[in-house]
Amino acid sequence: MIRIGIVGYGNLGKGVEAAVFNNEDMELVAVFTRRDPSSLTVNTPGVKVDSYSNMAAYKDKIDIMINCGGSATDLPKSTPEIAELFSVIDSFDTHAKIPEHFSNVDAKAKANGNIAVISCGWDPGMFSLNRLYMNAILPNGNDYTFWGRGVSQGHSDAIRRIEGVIDARQYTVPVEQALASVRAGENPELTTRQKHTRECFVVAQEGADKERIEKEIKTMPNYFSDYDTTVTFISMDELKANHSGIPHGGSVIRSGVTGFNKDVKHTIEYSLNLESNPEFTGSVIAAYARAAYKLLSKGETGCKTVFDIAPADLTYMSGEEIRAHML
Amino acid sequence: MIRIGIVGYGNLGKGVEAAVFNNEDMELVAVFTRRDPSSLTVNTPGVKVDSYSNMAAYKDKIDIMINCGGSATDLPKSTPEIAELFSVIDSFDTHAKIPEHFSNVDAKAKANGNIAVISCGWDPGMFSLNRLYMNAILPNGNDYTFWGRGVSQGHSDAIRRIEGVIDARQYTVPVEQALASVRAGENPELTTRQKHTRECFVVAQEGADKERIEKEIKTMPNYFSDYDTTVTFISMDELKANHSGIPHGGSVIRSGVTGFNKDVKHTIEYSLNLESNPEFTGSVIAAYARAAYKLLSKGETGCKTVFDIAPADLTYMSGEEIRAHML
Repeated sequence: MIRIGIVGYGNLGKGVEAAVFNNEDMELVAVFTRRDPSSLTVNTPGVKVDSYSNMAAYKDKIDIMINCGGSATDLPKSTPEIAELFSVIDSFDTHAKIPEHFSNVDAKAKANGNIAVISCGWDPGMFSLNRLYMNAILPNGNDYTFWGRGVSQGHSDAIRRIEGVIDARQYTVPVEQALASVRAGENPELTTRQKHTRECFVVAQEGADKERIEKEIKTMPNYFSDYDTTVTFISMDELKANHSGIPHGGSVIRSGVTGFNKDVKHTIEYSLNLESNPEFTGSVIAAYARAAYKLLSKGETGCKTVFDIAPADLTYMSGEEIRAHML
Repeated sequence: MIRIGIVGYGNLGKGVEAAVFNNEDMELVAVFTRRDPSSLTVNTPGVKVDSYSNMAAYKDKIDIMINCGGSATDLPKSTPEIAELFSVIDSFDTHAKIPEHFSNVDAKAKANGNIAVISCGWDPGMFSLNRLYMNAILPNGNDYTFWGRGVSQGHSDAIRRIEGVIDARQYTVPVEQALASVRAGENPELTTRQKHTRECFVVAQEGADKERIEKEIKTMPNYFSDYDTTVTFISMDELKANHSGIPHGGSVIRSGVTGFNKDVKHTIEYSLNLESNPEFTGSVIAAYARAAYKLLSKGETGCKTVFDIAPADLTYMSGEEIRAHML
């Protein structure tokens, strides 16, 4: 059994917990929190909840620690910290800061004989991986990434900060016409507006100025002003009934050419349709926890990404089994 | 530069040649044939054509040999032979015999300090790889593979062997309704007939009994009798004008569930739309030739499959570059 610890118990922590439950070669040992541990009840029976600061006591009881903190301020600090004590995985997604984060985590992991896997999930993660495979196979071509239909937590939060808004849910939606053009190998040049639309479902306070709220959303720089955005006001009951899930997904597509005249077209597409973003992300992370465990037992140390890990290391099956049944 | 040799100059050999041409870090040194070398003109200027039996003379001139022979009788014999002299890649696709082939090639490659990659291409190859990733991420679920719309060489050949047939092209076509049901996460149980149809375009001899030919096709066991098959008689001119390409493609889909109640649905799909099956297969093989070269320079030996090779080894880019630009 691979003994797992989870750090942080938000949506992603719960998603990882469910994934560990569904992998028969893994067991969840403890959940660590910066809140008061006694305030937290977790979904897996018999699992300890302990304080982040008490982690060192588990050094011989946990094989892989899964850090489910946020990318903005938490992971850059906590993943290197954890890597001093444990092999660790995170889902760091601030693209511009990945090289710096990699280097910090790599130093701590190597110095302490641990493995770390950063930026694991679906984007970054499986989408990145597919981009790499596609580019290696078709060196001449164009990459396209479409996200959704799915809930963007960041955009939903941005709407909630507007005066007069009680709650909100924002869906990122790929433009069907753009997707069809890319899939047809037409290699379109697409602006931000041509690739995605944004659908906002907003619960406003009674008597709030809905016209102003709608205008503030639609003109919000970075978040909405570059998109065709629709705003629909709904009741809190409707939000709870129809918008409580966290679905997401999307497609990575490479449209490329081969041949001496570079005129033979090919399209490769990897797409995801997910009812729960955190449960799927947690499932990807659990598979890479297994890989980290295998790499560690081969004597490897240091920081890795999905690029560095051979597919065979993700499965509980042996080389013989996968060659016989999956090749 | 990675110095490449190609063994066999049929459709796949030409596809690999075009892929090598399109990869700036590779150069084609020689093409080997069992035919009279002087009878062969290859597409790349300045490339030697030599006899299969003269391969040993190139031991220090070629890094990776790409074996483009057929799976039925050629590859089981020639890949182990070549692995005694060179690091080698093939596209062996007789699924039931992969374990035996792996073991034969592995022994020769290890004994001679070479790397081998077998069963490389898209199926087996990228489809297998995606099945493995999908299964590792979603341990609870069902796999589906659809092929086409594309030309099946084996089925086209089977039609050509019928009396009165001059030429033929057979397209394997996925059933749209089945695909839609799988994509919707309905987890259908599908019979052979419900997954694919077969479209046959046949050029008959003048005066041939078309009714008999059509009946012989539709009732042919293994090839057609389990499918809804349509037969269309066309002229040789029409065959040449509209059916000279070798397009193919398909989709690997996993429909799985997560969560403590196993009731949260997810669909992962990897799909290919290829104008030229051999040129795409050749492009996959070229990327794995680079990986074989990298593994060799790390001191690894023996037989590998796509399962054993980390994505980063497929690209000419450094770890720093891919982390900064593709993660």
